[in-house]
Amino acid sequence: MHITSEQRLDDGVLERTFTLGDIPGILWTPASAPEPAPLILLGHPPLGLGRMYPRLAARARHSAADGFASATIELPGSGERPRWPALDQARAELRRAMQAGEPVSDEIVDALTLPLVEKHVPEWQGALDALLALPGLGGPVGFSGGVIALGVRLAAVDPRIAAAVLFAGSFVPRATFEDAKRVTIPLHVLLQWDDEGNDRGASLDLFDAFGSEEKSLHAHLGGHTGVPEYAGEAAAQFFKRHLR
Amino acid sequence: MHITSEQRLDDGVLERTFTLGDIPGILWTPASAPEPAPLILLGHPPLGLGRMYPRLAARARHSAADGFASATIELPGSGERPRWPALDQARAELRRAMQAGEPVSDEIVDALTLPLVEKHVPEWQGALDALLALPGLGGPVGFSGGVIALGVRLAAVDPRIAAAVLFAGSFVPRATFEDAKRVTIPLHVLLQWDDEGNDRGASLDLFDAFGSEEKSLHAHLGGHTGVPEYAGEAAAQFFKRHLR
Repeated sequence: MHITSEQRLDDGVLERTFTLGDIPGILWTPASAPEPAPLILLGHPPLGLGRMYPRLAARARHSAADGFASATIELPGSGERPRWPALDQARAELRRAMQAGEPVSDEIVDALTLPLVEKHVPEWQGALDALLALPGLGGPVGFSGGVIALGVRLAAVDPRIAAAVLFAGSFVPRATFEDAKRVTIPLHVLLQWDDEGNDRGASLDLFDAFGSEEKSLHAHLGGHTGVPEYAGEAAAQFFKRHLR
Repeated sequence: MHITSEQRLDDGVLERTFTLGDIPGILWTPASAPEPAPLILLGHPPLGLGRMYPRLAARARHSAADGFASATIELPGSGERPRWPALDQARAELRRAMQAGEPVSDEIVDALTLPLVEKHVPEWQGALDALLALPGLGGPVGFSGGVIALGVRLAAVDPRIAAAVLFAGSFVPRATFEDAKRVTIPLHVLLQWDDEGNDRGASLDLFDAFGSEEKSLHAHLGGHTGVPEYAGEAAAQFFKRHLR
């Protein structure tokens, strides 16, 4: 892991950009935190870290106020990472189907999500190895948001993930239902009730499928990007209960 | 309204029992509160105020710490109020159907809930008239919990109810779906995902039917009585956002 820049934000949070091989990432650590600080991995949609930066930094600074470090890494095929032609093709297929008013087939959903899961979950695990080796980090780890198929797989396979906030707002491949049964950590699942691009029934079925003994579903009125501010507050409370 | 007893609890909350005609009730007011204090009406299942007292008092004292007064009244046919043979008969029908493993028919659900709604909603409204006339009360009013058909009808017909926490854990008559469309206040709906006596699909449909622009659904793993403590905390936050 190479630290490529370092700046102190006005609230005292230390923001460091890094690369891990060819994967760029950002780490935020609070001005004061328990040692070792709990760490929240911030998932995000495949729009590139540059474009996602304002929202990610806001989430990280909010968590820093609760004593949590946060980190994120770039998705394959996004931002400054090399394009991924197969993924671009799957996205083109998706656009074509949606513009034609056709249902989005399982094949398209699989092509959009499964290669990403296979490639990116090990990348998250490598990042976690490197992050937890840094001085001051090493507390329990949470995962928050992003592509749900990724978060579910990571929670299913990596015992270091102690709790997760998942956002049921992206396509759910069939394989994710199998992963969900293997997830046993506490979950706080967000669902936007009127999300245009989201299959509400599939999201409810996925919630039902999780093997966790503690799981809760929080559905709010509105579209994909309309998660109300108080829902973020409730998610923060969830991490405070489980990562301290 | 006749105050029939008055005691100061150890946290400074003033607990007064009262009767309103032949309806017994309890009012809790905080040691210190804004003037006029917001008021939360506490709904409850038809088990009698005596049996429900510990849980109701705990909810009221929790709300008092947030500066809210709370009040509750006895349901018709429960506690010290006269038995209601038609209701007893509907409950016997319900038990019979459930023991026989039969589905609970719309007719049974209607017989169980509609007479209660017709009789008890005006009783709540009368209690509200009397309560809001007391010195120190008169802030915005919230409704919390209890038989969902009652809460939905009250929220639909009484413009004094400014926000409601509803518990989707009792039978929903068809008429309640019509009432739900007329509800426009902010709602915080609780659902126990594995509630034995509750139809999960009907609860989700009811949530969908509410006309409110701000509504959120909070589903937690577990049975009817397994609502986790942190869910009560989130409901309290909802009232703090809407009744202050």
